[in-house]
Amino acid sequence: MLTSARVTCGVAMASMLAAIVAGGTPAAAYEPIVEKKTFTMKDYTTVNGAPIPEVRVGWEAYGSLNEARDNVIVIPHFFSGTSHAAGRYSEEGARGYWDSIIGSGKPIDTDKYYVISVDSLVNLNVGSAQVVTTGPASINPETGEPYGMDFPIVEIGDFVRVQRRLLANLGIEKVHAVMGASMGALQAYDWAARYPDMVERVIPVIGNGFADPFLIGWLDIWAQPIRLDPNWNGGDYYGGDRPKAGLAAALKTVTLHAQNWPWAQKAFGRKWAAKDADPAKSFDNRYAVEAALDKVAKDRASSADANHFLYLVKANQLFIAGDAETPEAGLKAIDAPTLMLQAQGDLVFFPGLADQTQQMIESDGTPVARAQIPGDRGHLNGVLNIQSQAEKIRDFLNRTVGE
Amino acid sequence: MLTSARVTCGVAMASMLAAIVAGGTPAAAYEPIVEKKTFTMKDYTTVNGAPIPEVRVGWEAYGSLNEARDNVIVIPHFFSGTSHAAGRYSEEGARGYWDSIIGSGKPIDTDKYYVISVDSLVNLNVGSAQVVTTGPASINPETGEPYGMDFPIVEIGDFVRVQRRLLANLGIEKVHAVMGASMGALQAYDWAARYPDMVERVIPVIGNGFADPFLIGWLDIWAQPIRLDPNWNGGDYYGGDRPKAGLAAALKTVTLHAQNWPWAQKAFGRKWAAKDADPAKSFDNRYAVEAALDKVAKDRASSADANHFLYLVKANQLFIAGDAETPEAGLKAIDAPTLMLQAQGDLVFFPGLADQTQQMIESDGTPVARAQIPGDRGHLNGVLNIQSQAEKIRDFLNRTVGE
Repeated sequence: MLTSARVTCGVAMASMLAAIVAGGTPAAAYEPIVEKKTFTMKDYTTVNGAPIPEVRVGWEAYGSLNEARDNVIVIPHFFSGTSHAAGRYSEEGARGYWDSIIGSGKPIDTDKYYVISVDSLVNLNVGSAQVVTTGPASINPETGEPYGMDFPIVEIGDFVRVQRRLLANLGIEKVHAVMGASMGALQAYDWAARYPDMVERVIPVIGNGFADPFLIGWLDIWAQPIRLDPNWNGGDYYGGDRPKAGLAAALKTVTLHAQNWPWAQKAFGRKWAAKDADPAKSFDNRYAVEAALDKVAKDRASSADANHFLYLVKANQLFIAGDAETPEAGLKAIDAPTLMLQAQGDLVFFPGLADQTQQMIESDGTPVARAQIPGDRGHLNGVLNIQSQAEKIRDFLNRTVGE
Repeated sequence: MLTSARVTCGVAMASMLAAIVAGGTPAAAYEPIVEKKTFTMKDYTTVNGAPIPEVRVGWEAYGSLNEARDNVIVIPHFFSGTSHAAGRYSEEGARGYWDSIIGSGKPIDTDKYYVISVDSLVNLNVGSAQVVTTGPASINPETGEPYGMDFPIVEIGDFVRVQRRLLANLGIEKVHAVMGASMGALQAYDWAARYPDMVERVIPVIGNGFADPFLIGWLDIWAQPIRLDPNWNGGDYYGGDRPKAGLAAALKTVTLHAQNWPWAQKAFGRKWAAKDADPAKSFDNRYAVEAALDKVAKDRASSADANHFLYLVKANQLFIAGDAETPEAGLKAIDAPTLMLQAQGDLVFFPGLADQTQQMIESDGTPVARAQIPGDRGHLNGVLNIQSQAEKIRDFLNRTVGE
């Protein structure tokens, strides 16, 4: 039976929640203990021309940099993500989100490649001990207080320029590939458009080459609960109560938008959140899917910052690859062979817009390959089911450029 | 060029907004002036067993009831709709939402059929002069104050049972067809499941036969901004400031969810909301699509009620046709031949779930036909582009049952 109504629910919520946020344990994993490092740079000027006296971002790496310093794969992260793409920080720690494809002998083979991932500016999870970022929650050296909404607006291009500076600092001037999921895909397009002489391959996963107006509208929908929370207070809340309810509501929207209906039907059906609490009898009585989403959102909100969320929304809305005048110009600037991976049932980045992205990249002859990641999870298939594309990724990375 | 970035915007917003909320003027229209009538019933008991001392709902009709009283087509309305399906209340008034298919010589031919539409209980647009409904904004006769959240929870089945009582009052015991869009489709399934001996044909448009958990989750996302608005105050706001911001945010979510990306790309591209107001320069500077959605949402909120929105969300979450134990049982109870019309790019009711609905209705041999309404508007295609299915609807209504 596909759905069951008015049936009480005694299932353990924990396993469902785990299934929402993680993809299970891969067969083989990146084994060395991962160390989070910090990159600091002074006097950064944003794409928009605003100065930031000091930028600090966390980063981690897997594998070893070769002598020629040309075996580098950059993995920028998604909207609600961090630079923890593979391995774990301790024996008991959680594995990175793409651990299934990054490691010894895997498609992103740490025996061959030096894989670098960097926490974005205005990273959402600023409250996590393993995240280092600079944004509205950081101290403004001019005032000694958190920036709040006085922090300069930053763009996807700023995230990429900071990564570029870190690589320059490490003596790296060639990038074998940039590969990222969702907002990580936007950074991958941006890398290839901004530094076409440096980037040799690009693998954007579940992301299109520009923010289209439907996405711009949805990003605004994601953000609106934060502004409605009276504790948000125009972004000035660091000395008082934080807008936890608004932030959780925003994260709940993101969480659901990144899924699709088969997941909800299989995981929850029409089960109630609690036995003897018929949703028909009270507004307090809810369905299991609602309670699970609330729990996940509350958990995610605990290490997140509301202003950082708003800055991420803005950065994504502004996105055009390479900060060009138009999406067409930005994507035409890409010279690196491109492997675009879309997800079945993706409700955030639509296939029709991926077609446009492909055409814009191909407009001056740059080759684009495409594949679809199958699964019931919508947009999240790009994170949770990436291993389904393991051989395509391996082949693409092994290919000599121009081949 | 499909999109244009960083280009200032001087276009008239008014025409875009009109395109969002209406479908343009049909070639021919229902010409007689429509009169809104009121149906009052005492001592109604809900599906859930709760008493409502007095129920009042508005209704309107097009065409004439024949002597046999068997030429009736019932048109229940969608979530944010009213009973105004065709014609207009005055020479200058707005035409009903399905005026393109209801009228003399049209598929729902008012020369043949008597078409009835009824305002739902807990109708969203309680502030409109042309809407009559009973819900949390109504006066509780026990207290002399608005019910607020003390109003009983009502279900889709309650909307249908009230319509059934109105028809009984008019001496109608046979229904030639029930046809509705979105929440109107849910009522159409419910009519056919609840009164299988009475309903001869059913045409559910852009709606599936049960609330699946992904929809349940989205309905909760729609509702959450209302609860975040401090003016909502647990539903007790009728004597003070109303939760306008939360209600507008809720309606903005509904408005965007009912569209799809090609509409946004054609109507807005990446244009700015105002000339010289680059969204990269300030959080106050926005894109045209955001400003348009805000304007529509604010307009829609002006005649809407926040508690009514929450009650509608609950009714939709609870939906199983005929108030059966399971979706399977509810849809199996339907005996009327069914024409399901889905919309291209519908992000609210998905084709895969329409397949399940079809299978459940067909499980005991009831015939189901299907067709897709094309267009760029996602879910809204079912309202705005319904005339594309004119001949299918006409043929289905003309067919002798059992043929």
